[in-house]
Amino acid sequence: MKKEKTAIQPTREEDYSEWYQQVIRAADLAETSPVRGCMVIKPWGYALWENIQRCLDKLFKETGHVNAYFPLFIPLRLMEKEAEHVEGFAKECAVVTHHRLEEDGKNGLKPAGELEEPLVVRPTSETIIGEMYAKWVQSYRDLPILINQWANIVRWEMRTRLFLRTTEFLWQEGHTAHETRNQAWDETMKMLDVYKTFAEKYMAVPVITGEKTAGERFPGADHTFCIEAMMQDRKALQSGTSHFLGQNFAKSAQIQYQSREGQLEYVWTTSWGVSTRLIGAMIMAHGDDNGMVIPPRLAPSHVVILPIIRNDSDMETVLPYCESLAADIRKLRYYERDLEVVIDKREVNAGEKSWQWVKKGIPITVEIGPRDIEENSVYVGRRDQGRRDRYSQNRTEFINSVISVLDDIQNGLFERAKVYRDAHLHRLTTWEEFKVFYTPKNQEKPEIHGGFVRAYWCEDADCETRVNDELGVTIRCIPFDQDHKSKGTCVICGKESRTEVIFAKAY
Amino acid sequence: MKKEKTAIQPTREEDYSEWYQQVIRAADLAETSPVRGCMVIKPWGYALWENIQRCLDKLFKETGHVNAYFPLFIPLRLMEKEAEHVEGFAKECAVVTHHRLEEDGKNGLKPAGELEEPLVVRPTSETIIGEMYAKWVQSYRDLPILINQWANIVRWEMRTRLFLRTTEFLWQEGHTAHETRNQAWDETMKMLDVYKTFAEKYMAVPVITGEKTAGERFPGADHTFCIEAMMQDRKALQSGTSHFLGQNFAKSAQIQYQSREGQLEYVWTTSWGVSTRLIGAMIMAHGDDNGMVIPPRLAPSHVVILPIIRNDSDMETVLPYCESLAADIRKLRYYERDLEVVIDKREVNAGEKSWQWVKKGIPITVEIGPRDIEENSVYVGRRDQGRRDRYSQNRTEFINSVISVLDDIQNGLFERAKVYRDAHLHRLTTWEEFKVFYTPKNQEKPEIHGGFVRAYWCEDADCETRVNDELGVTIRCIPFDQDHKSKGTCVICGKESRTEVIFAKAY
Repeated sequence: MKKEKTAIQPTREEDYSEWYQQVIRAADLAETSPVRGCMVIKPWGYALWENIQRCLDKLFKETGHVNAYFPLFIPLRLMEKEAEHVEGFAKECAVVTHHRLEEDGKNGLKPAGELEEPLVVRPTSETIIGEMYAKWVQSYRDLPILINQWANIVRWEMRTRLFLRTTEFLWQEGHTAHETRNQAWDETMKMLDVYKTFAEKYMAVPVITGEKTAGERFPGADHTFCIEAMMQDRKALQSGTSHFLGQNFAKSAQIQYQSREGQLEYVWTTSWGVSTRLIGAMIMAHGDDNGMVIPPRLAPSHVVILPIIRNDSDMETVLPYCESLAADIRKLRYYERDLEVVIDKREVNAGEKSWQWVKKGIPITVEIGPRDIEENSVYVGRRDQGRRDRYSQNRTEFINSVISVLDDIQNGLFERAKVYRDAHLHRLTTWEEFKVFYTPKNQEKPEIHGGFVRAYWCEDADCETRVNDELGVTIRCIPFDQDHKSKGTCVICGKESRTEVIFAKAY
Repeated sequence: MKKEKTAIQPTREEDYSEWYQQVIRAADLAETSPVRGCMVIKPWGYALWENIQRCLDKLFKETGHVNAYFPLFIPLRLMEKEAEHVEGFAKECAVVTHHRLEEDGKNGLKPAGELEEPLVVRPTSETIIGEMYAKWVQSYRDLPILINQWANIVRWEMRTRLFLRTTEFLWQEGHTAHETRNQAWDETMKMLDVYKTFAEKYMAVPVITGEKTAGERFPGADHTFCIEAMMQDRKALQSGTSHFLGQNFAKSAQIQYQSREGQLEYVWTTSWGVSTRLIGAMIMAHGDDNGMVIPPRLAPSHVVILPIIRNDSDMETVLPYCESLAADIRKLRYYERDLEVVIDKREVNAGEKSWQWVKKGIPITVEIGPRDIEENSVYVGRRDQGRRDRYSQNRTEFINSVISVLDDIQNGLFERAKVYRDAHLHRLTTWEEFKVFYTPKNQEKPEIHGGFVRAYWCEDADCETRVNDELGVTIRCIPFDQDHKSKGTCVICGKESRTEVIFAKAY
């Protein structure tokens, strides 16, 4: 049988990394900019981010958080207060050193007005926010502080990749302060759970929750927890983190309060964040060889209507029919939002136009030509099905079924991703098996390897370093669902262990 | 009669500038940060900004715009392309020159990894966005481009003031590209009109629309249009600008397209923006000597319910009554939004608590104690009325009247601001009158002057400079509503003129 030509070249199978770039281009989500490592998020990609923001923001507010905004710049001396923290970020800080431009004598301009103290462009905001909390907190009555910030972040990256790793990116960062260790711990867990809910229910991406090893912790944290997802090349993508910061930042910024017992105590803090990286996660979890596939709950538009017009008289009948259909669908609601419908009236070849929307990943396409109108029907395509599965449907029946189709697509995407993930998550016990699992079967496609491994680990950092050095594999997390009664042997060194971890190659 | 003590000290009359700072503090809207010139926008202030964003964003989308995101940094060589533009911003550019930190040998860190080319932190994005448009536009079919960006901006300011002028601020910037001059012109006007609608309908601030003089134009623009509002010290606040950029940025960035006639043409561009300065406008237009007064359409919360609890048994009756009232009010909608209701259960003295909400400017306060419950009534306070005007009202009647009360407050604020503005806008014809008008009557309060003057101006830049130098007065705009048939003489030099302008002292 002849292989069907796909809209994205190369296919995932042929070159996953290049496929990823091509999906972003074909869906018009983002592109590189003249600024090293910084991307431009184009309207279709940004609309996706707006939906991520809207849904997450609602979850944050439902759990008692409010938004605020803190400065972009952090004076160097404040960054330096938490030693581990600044060490962790020192290699990737953009630094502002001047505050104006002046003529350089060669018809150009040069930086001038050197600052007395350099300003770091925030790579994360624990230190600057900590300074403010130290002012705001006096007594236990001022606690908890439950604040989130939507902001841009800069981390100087040498090798960048659209959405996954860029010098500037957009994110949210929650920063909370509490009276007791327990309250901060509960907050850390609660927000990890919010991320899991969001990833699975909205992004349709199943995730494993667990704790990072000491070597993978956020600089300055006592514990870092994460959600880890499997992409279609079986690599892991860390999709969100929640940090229990203990009293480290409280001590470095002197965030103290008068306790109920009248004692001066340090607060306990947490921070948690997700970023535009989530868009990369959705592309790689759901995209196929025809382009992007957007989970309906986050889709910028749910339905596109494509009028099929061959001449002027078609125009007079087809367009009003499309407008009336759109008006009817827009009355429907899906996940607390009116349905978004686009009518694409551009004068572009009908086939090409239809393919453009497939590549963009819109959940439902509806083609309408004169014959459909005669039959009072519409021609429906679902993004989770093949082009040959498109079907003709009575107009009213279509309207009555839109919501259930969207839900069906949403649930189908999750199920498909979960089946894939589970199929490529193996329990291994020996180093020999482990090596084979992570050794590409085909030398020409080094990216095709086994997937996730769940195995025992002795908790020794040396073993962790060894798998990374020898196989490029990291411990993604120590998953929460441990069977504490059983035990095994470290898959690397063979030492006895009671701790299972998830191994994977990762982005 | 003894003067009533007000919640804000000093009063507007006593010291307007200090009153402004105190309102911000009392309402907990924002505060200065350890970063020179940068503010922290606190939750109540940020919630106001979120509402501004939500409402404006809707107006932008209704007029066909989409959002996108462009890099924070602009390589110096791109900034330099438009000579007038870079000259206009050169003195206030924060410049990134290094991309990491390293040990300075004195137990501290210093900037390292010098960049080959310095990066300017965007003071506005015409140049970087123009670079992208040059790639995106090939043919007339690619036009218009109607994009808006919500972003942070940095302009190094020597004298800063919360919300009004800060080194970093939040804003939106629209950037559009068009086939023809007319289309770009219409866009410029349309967006100015959107700003006027927003200012008057949502912020309840009446504005004068018109064009800036050549001297006050945006660097690189052919024409700059603005909305100007009067604050309660009779000074003007420029609250939004819309720029017709002609082909200046199209030529510097080479944004060219193949026209319908097959010619290679430059596009015509516009840009338009408003910022967190709008929050300053609302404070100064509506605030009173008891604090902030928030127009209901932008209020983070519309109603606060204050349970009056004197003992534990009160708790059992009062709290459920409050919860049930809140649930009923939350079912109501005002301006496309469910009513937001806070129940303030904090253990704080009832009078103090009530005053805190007055200072925050919430539109409606409802106090509920055991006696109110017995009578099935509530005790209502409106922020636009005095504390002595609070009234008892039947619970059901109150619920039925909430929306009309909110609307009444909203309209009342606009009317009051308009009456004030009109009362302090004078038509003057002679330089003598003009000088007296802008000479403070009381030397101890130099800020108390006449207000706005509408007068003829000869269109000579020298006269414009003279009023500024001698009186600190600027031409705010050449208002659109000119009576082109009549003529007069320049209020400064006496030369004949057909152009009336608005003069004022300004922020």
